[in-house]
Amino acid sequence: MTMDRKAQILQVPYGTRDMLAGEAAARREVAQRVGALFHAWGYSEVQTPTFEYLDTFKSCGQVSSSNFKFFDRSNNILMLRTEMTAPIARLVATRMQREPGVKRLRYEAQVFRYEDAQAGRQCEFSQLGIEMMGAQGAAADAEVIALAVAALQETGLPHFSISMGHVEFINGLCEMAALTEAQTAEVKRCLITHDVVGLEAVICASRIAGPLAEVFKDLPFLHGGPELLERLGRQMLSQRCQHTLQNLREIYDLCAAYGAAQYLEFDLGLIRNFDYYTGMIFEGYTSGMGYPIIGGGRYDTLMAAFGTPGPATGFALGLDRVMLALARSGGLTQEECFDVLVAYEDGALPQAIARSQTLRAAGRSVKLA
Amino acid sequence: MTMDRKAQILQVPYGTRDMLAGEAAARREVAQRVGALFHAWGYSEVQTPTFEYLDTFKSCGQVSSSNFKFFDRSNNILMLRTEMTAPIARLVATRMQREPGVKRLRYEAQVFRYEDAQAGRQCEFSQLGIEMMGAQGAAADAEVIALAVAALQETGLPHFSISMGHVEFINGLCEMAALTEAQTAEVKRCLITHDVVGLEAVICASRIAGPLAEVFKDLPFLHGGPELLERLGRQMLSQRCQHTLQNLREIYDLCAAYGAAQYLEFDLGLIRNFDYYTGMIFEGYTSGMGYPIIGGGRYDTLMAAFGTPGPATGFALGLDRVMLALARSGGLTQEECFDVLVAYEDGALPQAIARSQTLRAAGRSVKLA
Repeated sequence: MTMDRKAQILQVPYGTRDMLAGEAAARREVAQRVGALFHAWGYSEVQTPTFEYLDTFKSCGQVSSSNFKFFDRSNNILMLRTEMTAPIARLVATRMQREPGVKRLRYEAQVFRYEDAQAGRQCEFSQLGIEMMGAQGAAADAEVIALAVAALQETGLPHFSISMGHVEFINGLCEMAALTEAQTAEVKRCLITHDVVGLEAVICASRIAGPLAEVFKDLPFLHGGPELLERLGRQMLSQRCQHTLQNLREIYDLCAAYGAAQYLEFDLGLIRNFDYYTGMIFEGYTSGMGYPIIGGGRYDTLMAAFGTPGPATGFALGLDRVMLALARSGGLTQEECFDVLVAYEDGALPQAIARSQTLRAAGRSVKLA
Repeated sequence: MTMDRKAQILQVPYGTRDMLAGEAAARREVAQRVGALFHAWGYSEVQTPTFEYLDTFKSCGQVSSSNFKFFDRSNNILMLRTEMTAPIARLVATRMQREPGVKRLRYEAQVFRYEDAQAGRQCEFSQLGIEMMGAQGAAADAEVIALAVAALQETGLPHFSISMGHVEFINGLCEMAALTEAQTAEVKRCLITHDVVGLEAVICASRIAGPLAEVFKDLPFLHGGPELLERLGRQMLSQRCQHTLQNLREIYDLCAAYGAAQYLEFDLGLIRNFDYYTGMIFEGYTSGMGYPIIGGGRYDTLMAAFGTPGPATGFALGLDRVMLALARSGGLTQEECFDVLVAYEDGALPQAIARSQTLRAAGRSVKLA
């Protein structure tokens, strides 16, 4: 056996990691607390397979080169799931389509993306999340954002904030400027990558002028509270844009009723890397972490891809990133503790066993030496 | 899009399944209870990646045609894990080799085998298990079996039993009969498949005669309590065989100290489908289920494949099979229940939100209508 081969036996695959005793226990505890919170808000747990047919993700535009793909024995292409929204949409469309009313579902799942791995970005990671299916309107979006805030509180993170934007605000601006599809895509790419220079180039090339050009240029910097919405509302924007501002304000006011408004700000240049969003979108951040720790939004057209059109909204929390942030903030015990060690002399093992069992029955954790 | 294509969007892959609200909650509850039990016995949770380099499993003979394999971008072969013993051995060898003493580890994991799917046998399934590394002797094996019994009790299964055998008893018999490696393998294949006719053919072909031939023919039927060991002990068996009988008796007596003996019987023809076992092996069954619901044993040579030789013993519980047995026995609530539904009239949403939050803070689960 070559050294390389020997080394690979002992290694974990690129972008994955082991979790040792203590770390795994701390993770499970956080996941259990958040799961209990989701339950307290009326969300039922579901589970889906770790891999799906490629077509399931393809049907909602979720296939890229960064997926783990393989074949089954009938040469169907399988894919390790990259997120849980599409699988849950499939599940609801096939198994719950006859149940009336709003469906509140929660999950805890391993998901997989082939990415350049670094702290907070791995090829395998865990998501805790919820989907609320069948509910339109600001009330549903506010419940989802308020629950995202409550979930982050429940993890014990000392600092976090949530930025809220709206897909239709940017779409509305692009429509006002009569941008082509390619130009609209370029605007979004610039916003995702914070490419301010690139954004100005599109504005210039597409001959947007006057106050509308100013709004476009400002897009990466349109952060703020309700006063930002009011300021924008006074500009000469289309009905489509005005509606999004009203929608965001309504969501914000309901979040205030949940006691969650203090964690929120608006970011009208916010774009998320999933094509299926159609309305409000949001991301949550914590200090010292370059990636969002939570993200979600409204996706009213995705269910149609599975044959059962309907409105939907939801989010996913990145458990690995939250645990990393907790560890960095010092708010994490990295030890799994046991109460009692029972030692014994030669020949006294049966008595030591009996004593251990009595202690366990009394609720203690016991290691028999 | 063809009908076939459309259907595949909506299907789960062969051998996998969705778990709906209620079923998923019941599963999680059982998994949490068993995990808490493992903790009470001094076992620390660890997690490993969902897939490993193929070589990791290959190094301990765990590769067959029934694995899901794929490539990473450097053309290394990855494999969805088929069980957790090899990954945990790798983890202990690389990350815990400096920690002295016995290591007690537990896990909850999805594992994958490409098999003919049927009730209780899926291509993706969940295992709860423990590994005890660095401990020799009957005391360690008795702890493992007693914990297996306690875990099955904790699941709430009304009926179950555990059969205990010993790899070295069969190896010892084959040595006494001077069987070739191929003949020994054929004996084991016959025992795994309960091929009594095939077994008699091997005995005949290898010219085993007299009392030894009788023991061989009896192998599939050597079930019983301690009296079986005594009866066999009076036969003219080799030291190797006699030692295994003594070892089994010692383990049994210690299991009695745990209060677990009533669930045990010996099955000296028991073989398990993993090559790495070296000593005591066991399987647990429940009524109406054609597959074992739990299985394990001692594997004292596996750690050497990862460069850190040492004794080890452990087991895995098949959560899907246990849940299926629980459902069939009627001992399962298939509903996730919520305490309160808060409805509201137009304009009263902020008040309904406030009321929901108060109820949640008081420990109730609340759906806002």
